[in-house]
Amino acid sequence: MSFKLDTPIDMHLHLREGKLLKDVLQWSAEQFAAGVIMPNLVPPVDNMDRLRKYRKEILENLKEKQFTPLMTLFLRHYSYRELEEAKGEIFSIKLYPKGITTNSEKGVSSIEEFYPVFEIMEELEIPLSVHGETNGFVLDREREFAPIYIQLAERFPKLKIIMEHISTKELAELVRDYPNLYATVTLHHLLFTLDDLAGGRLNPHFFCKPILKTPVDRAVLQRLVREGHPRVMFGSDSAPHILRDKLKGAAGVFSAPVALPLLAHFFDGDWKGLQRFISDNARRNFNLQIPEKEVEILEIPWEVPHIVGEVIPLLAGERLRFRVRGIG
Amino acid sequence: MSFKLDTPIDMHLHLREGKLLKDVLQWSAEQFAAGVIMPNLVPPVDNMDRLRKYRKEILENLKEKQFTPLMTLFLRHYSYRELEEAKGEIFSIKLYPKGITTNSEKGVSSIEEFYPVFEIMEELEIPLSVHGETNGFVLDREREFAPIYIQLAERFPKLKIIMEHISTKELAELVRDYPNLYATVTLHHLLFTLDDLAGGRLNPHFFCKPILKTPVDRAVLQRLVREGHPRVMFGSDSAPHILRDKLKGAAGVFSAPVALPLLAHFFDGDWKGLQRFISDNARRNFNLQIPEKEVEILEIPWEVPHIVGEVIPLLAGERLRFRVRGIG
Repeated sequence: MSFKLDTPIDMHLHLREGKLLKDVLQWSAEQFAAGVIMPNLVPPVDNMDRLRKYRKEILENLKEKQFTPLMTLFLRHYSYRELEEAKGEIFSIKLYPKGITTNSEKGVSSIEEFYPVFEIMEELEIPLSVHGETNGFVLDREREFAPIYIQLAERFPKLKIIMEHISTKELAELVRDYPNLYATVTLHHLLFTLDDLAGGRLNPHFFCKPILKTPVDRAVLQRLVREGHPRVMFGSDSAPHILRDKLKGAAGVFSAPVALPLLAHFFDGDWKGLQRFISDNARRNFNLQIPEKEVEILEIPWEVPHIVGEVIPLLAGERLRFRVRGIG
Repeated sequence: MSFKLDTPIDMHLHLREGKLLKDVLQWSAEQFAAGVIMPNLVPPVDNMDRLRKYRKEILENLKEKQFTPLMTLFLRHYSYRELEEAKGEIFSIKLYPKGITTNSEKGVSSIEEFYPVFEIMEELEIPLSVHGETNGFVLDREREFAPIYIQLAERFPKLKIIMEHISTKELAELVRDYPNLYATVTLHHLLFTLDDLAGGRLNPHFFCKPILKTPVDRAVLQRLVREGHPRVMFGSDSAPHILRDKLKGAAGVFSAPVALPLLAHFFDGDWKGLQRFISDNARRNFNLQIPEKEVEILEIPWEVPHIVGEVIPLLAGERLRFRVRGIG
C-alpha cells in the first residue's frame, strides 16, 4: 500500500544553525515542500540582514533542492519601513513571551506595548505567530494565555494570528471562535501525554514546551485534527538539541524524522484528511505559493534511526508502520 | 539561634543495600533517632531471614550508633504463623501496587486477594503502609486510589493504614475522614511542584513517584502539616539512585541530607509544630519505643553537598538557612 501527498508543509520548524542545521535539515527537506522556520537563534533573527544570511545558510546546505524555507522574524519594535521591506521575504513575525522556551530571553513581557507593530502587520498582511504561554504553573500556562489570544483577535480582526503548537482542550476550542485565529498542532501533542515524559521512567526526549498534557487534552486535539478544521494545520515544532544538552534539561522534541510516518499512522486511511492537515489548509489560509512536490508514503515497516548527528529523534530505534519513499 | 528536636523519626526511608547503603546511611542516622526502612529491594524483603540480614547490614554500617531501623516487610500472602513470628521485629507491611515505582514489579494487582492477610494484620496489630497509586494517568494515579483507601479503612476498622507520601488535595482531605487512616508527607511534596521538575529545564533530581503535583495540591498539604493534624507524620521517602541511573530516568528524590534543615525553614519558628510532625505524632500513633535522642538545629547557613557517594542530593550545592549540629 502506498499513497502520495501533494506539497506537504511543516508550519513550525526549528532548523538551528551550523553543524546542527547540517545534521537535521535533510529530514525536513526530504519530507516537506516547505517549512516555516523559527527565528529563536542566538542572537534572534530580528532584522533582514540576519534573516537573509540565515536563509542563505539553509539553502546552501540543502541536498534536496525542492524545499522552501518560509522565514520568520522575532518580534520587536519594527518600524513601518522595516516591515514594508520585509513583507515579501517573510511568512510571519513570531511572538515569544519572555523566557518561556528555548532562547526566548529577548521575548515580550507586555503585549499592549506591541500594538503599534501589530497595526502595521495588520495593514501589510503579515501574520503573527505566537508561542502562547504565560509564566504561570507549567500545566496552566497555555490556558492562562487564552485571554491574550482573545484580546488580540478582537483588537486586530484582520491580523492573522497563529496559535502555535496548541496543547490544551481550551485552545482547541478557542480556534473555532474567531475567524482570524489559526492553530498549528505538533505530532507529539497529537499523539502523546505527560505519561510519556514522566509516567514510567523520566524520558527527556518527550520534554518540550508547551509540556505534554493530559489524555483529555490529547483527545480533544485529536478530534479537532480528525474533523479537519480549516484553520488547523500541521506544525511539527521539531526542535533538535544535541544529546548533551537534552541531558541537561533542554526542552524540545526532535520529531522531523518521524513526522510523515506517524501522521500516516494517525490518519490511517483518511488520506484526504491528512492532505488537508499537512498542506491544503495552510496553502489556502495564507495563500502560499510553494512549488509543487509529491511525497510518497509506503506502508512498509521502517526503523527510526537511533541518532541523527548528535540528536536523538522521537521514537529512536522503534519500528514504525509507514515510511517515506527514498528516506532513511 | 538554635533549638533542639526530641527523637526525630523518618517514617518512610529508602536505605538501599551494599555500597549505596554505606554512602547514604549516615545522613539519616545523624539526623534521626529512627527510620521506617522500605522493603523494595531486589529481591524484596518478604521473609524474616532476608529482613534480619538487611537489618544487620544496616546496623553494621552505622557510625552513629543511636539509630533504630524500623523494618518493614513487602506484602505477599503471609500466613498467621509467619506474621506472629514477625510481629515483634517489624513496624509494618508495605503494599506496592504492581509496577508503579522502583522495584515494585512484584507488587499487588488485586486488593481483595490480600484480605486474609489484612485480617491477620488487624488481629496482630501490624500497620499497613501503602503506596497508593493506580496505573492510570500519572497526575491522576493518587486520587484514583482514594476509593481503595476508603474500602480498606471501612473493611478493616482496626487496621492502621498509612497512606504513604500523600501528594494531592484529595488524600490530604481523606486523612481527616477515617480514624484508622494515617498519612506521611515528604519534604519534596510539601515544598515543590511539577514546576520544579519541568517548569524550566527538565530536572531529574525532582523526579519521583508519586510525581510532584500542582501549587493547589501543595498548598493543601502545607495547611494540613501546619495545622498539626495528629495522624500526619513526616516520612522523607528519601530514595537515592546513583547519578547514572537518574540520567536513565530512575524515580526518586534523595532528600535525607536536607530533611531537617528544610523542615526548620518550613516551620520557621513553630518548633512545637515541627516536633509534632517529626516525632510526637508518630510515637503516639504507633506507640513507638525509641531510645531518646536530641538533635540540635542551628540557624547558621549551610551548603548542601554537591554529591554523596554517587548520588546527587536534593538542592545540591545550594545554601540553606539552617543546619544540623555536627553534620556536613
